[in-house]
Amino acid sequence: MKYAVGVDIGGTTVKIGIFEENSKIVDKWEIPTVTEGNGKQVLPDIAKSVLAKLSEHGIEKSDVLGIGVGAPGAVDDKGFMPNGAVNLGWAPFNLAEEFGKEIGDIPVKGANDANVAAFGEMWQGGGRGHSDMVAVTLGTGVGGGIIIGGKIVAGATGAGGEIGHIHIVDDEPDTCGCGGHGCLEQYASATGIVRLAKRRLAKDNEPSVLREGEVSAKAVFDAVKAGDKVAGEIADQFGYYLGKGLAAVANVVNPQVFVIGGGVSKAGEILLKFIEPSFKKYAFPPCRGAKFAMAELGNDAGIVGAAGMIINK
Amino acid sequence: MKYAVGVDIGGTTVKIGIFEENSKIVDKWEIPTVTEGNGKQVLPDIAKSVLAKLSEHGIEKSDVLGIGVGAPGAVDDKGFMPNGAVNLGWAPFNLAEEFGKEIGDIPVKGANDANVAAFGEMWQGGGRGHSDMVAVTLGTGVGGGIIIGGKIVAGATGAGGEIGHIHIVDDEPDTCGCGGHGCLEQYASATGIVRLAKRRLAKDNEPSVLREGEVSAKAVFDAVKAGDKVAGEIADQFGYYLGKGLAAVANVVNPQVFVIGGGVSKAGEILLKFIEPSFKKYAFPPCRGAKFAMAELGNDAGIVGAAGMIINK
Repeated sequence: MKYAVGVDIGGTTVKIGIFEENSKIVDKWEIPTVTEGNGKQVLPDIAKSVLAKLSEHGIEKSDVLGIGVGAPGAVDDKGFMPNGAVNLGWAPFNLAEEFGKEIGDIPVKGANDANVAAFGEMWQGGGRGHSDMVAVTLGTGVGGGIIIGGKIVAGATGAGGEIGHIHIVDDEPDTCGCGGHGCLEQYASATGIVRLAKRRLAKDNEPSVLREGEVSAKAVFDAVKAGDKVAGEIADQFGYYLGKGLAAVANVVNPQVFVIGGGVSKAGEILLKFIEPSFKKYAFPPCRGAKFAMAELGNDAGIVGAAGMIINK
Repeated sequence: MKYAVGVDIGGTTVKIGIFEENSKIVDKWEIPTVTEGNGKQVLPDIAKSVLAKLSEHGIEKSDVLGIGVGAPGAVDDKGFMPNGAVNLGWAPFNLAEEFGKEIGDIPVKGANDANVAAFGEMWQGGGRGHSDMVAVTLGTGVGGGIIIGGKIVAGATGAGGEIGHIHIVDDEPDTCGCGGHGCLEQYASATGIVRLAKRRLAKDNEPSVLREGEVSAKAVFDAVKAGDKVAGEIADQFGYYLGKGLAAVANVVNPQVFVIGGGVSKAGEILLKFIEPSFKKYAFPPCRGAKFAMAELGNDAGIVGAAGMIINK
């Protein structure tokens, strides 16, 4: 039996999984991410933990096909991180090479965490059976991962799939985290939805359950499900902008499927009815047939995808 | 010595080239495209012509690595044309399989003509040395071709790279050929530039050489070079919209380089100074470093790319 290891490095914890080459999971666990000292302990900590678990399971290094590592920053297809990783304190360096030195004798492949999660959803999740897929992560921001012909599109500087910063609105006064104005992320992320909600609520005094507690993306979609009219208008706006942004993406790479994940996606398939009308309006007719599916792997998408990059290379 | 053949099927002529595997051209020629009878003669005519020329050059079929065929319509990565080819009268069919039957014993690969031309520019033209490239064709419409990791992005329905239909403007009253309103093609194609010019000229009576003859994209850029202020404003608008559209493309696939071709590109590098400011304004910072280059192969891009798909598969 051959194995692959998937590693998903986050700002507070590192998730790790050992998989059989047939995709069955052997073990998964977490270790804390120690960011002190510019994160210099992160890779040695992971290597130590992986080697200990392999030994615990009686798996020889020579039976490990490779280790896939997803990291929170741009990673090019050589494993280089041109901007390092701000959350971990990392300066620019080659993630795959450096982790290779720590782990020894096992091939290492590095990629951006969102792209790795996208790969996981293609292999084992909502994108199963497809090779041309766009993963859309609706969280604090809007991230994405593009898979073409079964391969991650890393991009020239590791920023492939950064669809959250597609320009969508011309007269946006607020500034996006990237310094721009009118990025998709300003309307379709959890924080974007809150912004849309506050604007709508400030517009008039129409009654809404959203006036009663703290406004969050979850509160908006719970209210939508309860039939709240104002919440429905906010969801319409969210869907209008997201559909428009995804139509642009479809006109570039013409995917088979969009897989929607991230915290906002916990609202469920109801999201799709807000996204699809605007998507179909703005997508070029031959690209309009793209399917929409919900992500299925949740927090495991990263370790599954990281191992999947090794098994399905 | 091994060879590859490149075929570029257009609405009036078919361009054909025989190349050595080191990329040197052996011969190139054209035959008329006979579209009568729903274009049923097109593939037999090409096969007959190719076989005659191979024989003339003393090249055995067994020394031909393959024939690449670019066709004017969507072609998926299996060589299937889901919409056929309107200009040729073709119904949906598998181009690669059918041409394979005509030519016999030589591998055939089919692709969309714009994507094939993009591949040619990557292999031998303005995109040389790059593997992540977007070709932008500014002609009657705006076409595109995306190359990632040295491979054409055909798309789920063969419509990869159809960037001319990215939605750019919200309040456009005119209808695009695709039925939409505000597509990139309505501002950045040769006909789009004429539209922008007519609008600008109708706005006031400011003197301009463009008021003297027929307005064309060429006339606009000739006037720009002669220092005409009104023409400069029209070019600014063209560049603003095109830069904005290409920024969206960059935020999706993060290419190393954009290669600008098509009739409008005959204006030369002066185009870039109108495109780049808006591109840099709207592209996500890590994607902003994409280079811009002019296409170099002109009408040969199709045959070079079609043969290149075989040689660099």
